[in-house]
Amino acid sequence: MTKTQIDHAKDGTLTAEMLEVARTENIEEELVLERVANGSLVIMTRKGCPPVAIGKGAGTKINVNMGTSSASIDPGSEIEKVKIAQKYGAATITDLSMGGDISAIRKLVLENTQLPVTTVPIYQTIVECGMDNVSFDDILSYLKKHIYEGVSSVLLHCVERKMLEQLKGSGRVMGMVSKGGSFTSSFMLLNDCENPFIEHFDEIMQILRKNDVVLSLGNTMRSGCVHDLKDGAQLMEIERNATLAKRANDIGVQVIINGMGGHIQASEIPESVKLYKEKADFPLFVAGPLPTDIAVGYDHIAGAVGASMASGAGADYLCYITPAEHLSLPSPQQVREGLIAFRIAAHIGDSIKYGLSDNDLMLARKRAEFDWKAQAELAIDPDRPTQMCPDEGPCSMCGDYCAIKIMKNYLSGDN
Amino acid sequence: MTKTQIDHAKDGTLTAEMLEVARTENIEEELVLERVANGSLVIMTRKGCPPVAIGKGAGTKINVNMGTSSASIDPGSEIEKVKIAQKYGAATITDLSMGGDISAIRKLVLENTQLPVTTVPIYQTIVECGMDNVSFDDILSYLKKHIYEGVSSVLLHCVERKMLEQLKGSGRVMGMVSKGGSFTSSFMLLNDCENPFIEHFDEIMQILRKNDVVLSLGNTMRSGCVHDLKDGAQLMEIERNATLAKRANDIGVQVIINGMGGHIQASEIPESVKLYKEKADFPLFVAGPLPTDIAVGYDHIAGAVGASMASGAGADYLCYITPAEHLSLPSPQQVREGLIAFRIAAHIGDSIKYGLSDNDLMLARKRAEFDWKAQAELAIDPDRPTQMCPDEGPCSMCGDYCAIKIMKNYLSGDN
Repeated sequence: MTKTQIDHAKDGTLTAEMLEVARTENIEEELVLERVANGSLVIMTRKGCPPVAIGKGAGTKINVNMGTSSASIDPGSEIEKVKIAQKYGAATITDLSMGGDISAIRKLVLENTQLPVTTVPIYQTIVECGMDNVSFDDILSYLKKHIYEGVSSVLLHCVERKMLEQLKGSGRVMGMVSKGGSFTSSFMLLNDCENPFIEHFDEIMQILRKNDVVLSLGNTMRSGCVHDLKDGAQLMEIERNATLAKRANDIGVQVIINGMGGHIQASEIPESVKLYKEKADFPLFVAGPLPTDIAVGYDHIAGAVGASMASGAGADYLCYITPAEHLSLPSPQQVREGLIAFRIAAHIGDSIKYGLSDNDLMLARKRAEFDWKAQAELAIDPDRPTQMCPDEGPCSMCGDYCAIKIMKNYLSGDN
Repeated sequence: MTKTQIDHAKDGTLTAEMLEVARTENIEEELVLERVANGSLVIMTRKGCPPVAIGKGAGTKINVNMGTSSASIDPGSEIEKVKIAQKYGAATITDLSMGGDISAIRKLVLENTQLPVTTVPIYQTIVECGMDNVSFDDILSYLKKHIYEGVSSVLLHCVERKMLEQLKGSGRVMGMVSKGGSFTSSFMLLNDCENPFIEHFDEIMQILRKNDVVLSLGNTMRSGCVHDLKDGAQLMEIERNATLAKRANDIGVQVIINGMGGHIQASEIPESVKLYKEKADFPLFVAGPLPTDIAVGYDHIAGAVGASMASGAGADYLCYITPAEHLSLPSPQQVREGLIAFRIAAHIGDSIKYGLSDNDLMLARKRAEFDWKAQAELAIDPDRPTQMCPDEGPCSMCGDYCAIKIMKNYLSGDN
């Protein structure tokens, strides 16, 4: 039987990927072993590509969603997004394509990036089989197809009938806003069955195990507006995902838990992260969260605020939000705007989790010296300040009356 | 002697401005009286314009800085910024002009907005008199000129020699980054004197009092990078401003304290706000704060994160930051981007201070109904979503596979 990262970690054997993670994330090798074994640190792998560490002790990571929809099919634009994601520092990509030749687009995505790629196989299953005709065999066969093609992680929605019942009477304004969750729920309702991913969990885990693919447990019950507060359906999903995560870990499959994404009041964010972590100490993947609904058109900014708070409180992995959220499929430029906003959030979150970074200090030193080129090189997005900065001397904000310049002599003790 | 808002409040007399504030901010009239009297709530007034309330119980307000510099003089562009500030929901404007015909630009600013205008009179004083020639009489005369022309508030930097001494040995990376603070400090060093604003405080307060102009106490000692931690010079300034604020309140002058602006580690933000509020319960005006230095080119986003945390912890009044911060004088479009980012921050802060808003709920309801026009109308910036949203039905993000649409029938109990 092939050994997975978890198997090796449980045996006490450091893999090449663990050694690389220990080095890049500056975590003691012993701790990498311990955390990969107990599941609190996940290593996403892809043949010939650098491993990506997500979880305890690692820097907060960003995922970029891309992919066609039935209303917007432009593979060229999607590949541009993939390149932007890698260029501007995403850790992973999720291909959510649902329009055009989905398999061909996935192939292009995999060919055009070194980053680990996640998919939600139920998307392609529903598009190509049709909701009314889809069988469990279809679901399984698309899942296998994605895994054999080389994705690093698959997202499965482990919603239960009792959660749907609970949701029905919940009085939520936005109901259910998870697309994969709504497909899975529709399958369960149409076929009057329980969730096939839960019913066949061990069988599915063996497929993931064989290819050391990371299980991403979906967040079907996330709230779709800040006024939809944490409710019974959400609490059931937290419990269910925690149980499944432990079972996957026992089987030797690495797990990430999607949680508290969507829309959540700012004051609830820290305690919500803590609730997830108390239930199950696995990497927590958060979409947003958005602490307001009225920032539409600028949801990347509202999301960056929520994501800073969430990562500061312990969330490990952030799904970016673009300015197009709730309005349209994002353009490549909007992907960049969303990604940079979330890299800022991750950096702020890390400053809360791990303390201030050397890069901040180095940039400040270059700023005090009016060294614009060096400042840009240290910036999260070097291209933007390069376009906007002066060639030399103080910037046009203060011109001749720059405080740093004025006080420099006095403070250096020269007068 | 003319009575100021504070005088009336201390007498127990509700002015027209207090009544309007009670109504627009939804604060009990008795509490408005009490808070204006003790200084925890400030009302900025301007003849013929709506009063603006800043402080305890009021919504978090945003100030927009604009103005020419010696390196960039375009009065037309500055007036465009003034109009954008009012259109997109700034509460106040600060004219920081230092280039061109400064008096003429201020006149244009006052003519083109209904918002209260703040100035930093030392700016024009230094530009027009020259640092080497300026006298205290000049300083006083420009201060009077600004007040007589109708500004609602003036910003004075009450830095002391002992703070400068303290700063000298502090080892800060960025030294002093306050422009007005550096002018005032230079005056003190060149003339070997103490701070003229402190030395002549009561005389100056009488000038403000006569016109019921709000005193804004500057934050000379703010840190210019996140690695410049709170130090002795900052603590001295907090104490000094607290003392001066109480003295101004006794004299009948309303006061706002500038504090903790600039650059500050995210984890320090809440306790820093609390420190200021404990020292003096006056409205706290915060520039940013920026919790990182490496977001250059996107400082409006990093600033929105810091400002959300600061306002959530009790800051009352936010000075926006634009994407051009640290790089150049902002364009009108960058003013809009910065302002909207800070309105989002203020809204998130208010959700922490006061709970969720009805606007969020109303927008979510319209989203569930795919009513795009109504969503845009409820948004912080209605123009942006209007440009990006579809005409009807689900958006191009999910197209036919919209989760809300799919689950709507089931959740409404129709099947």
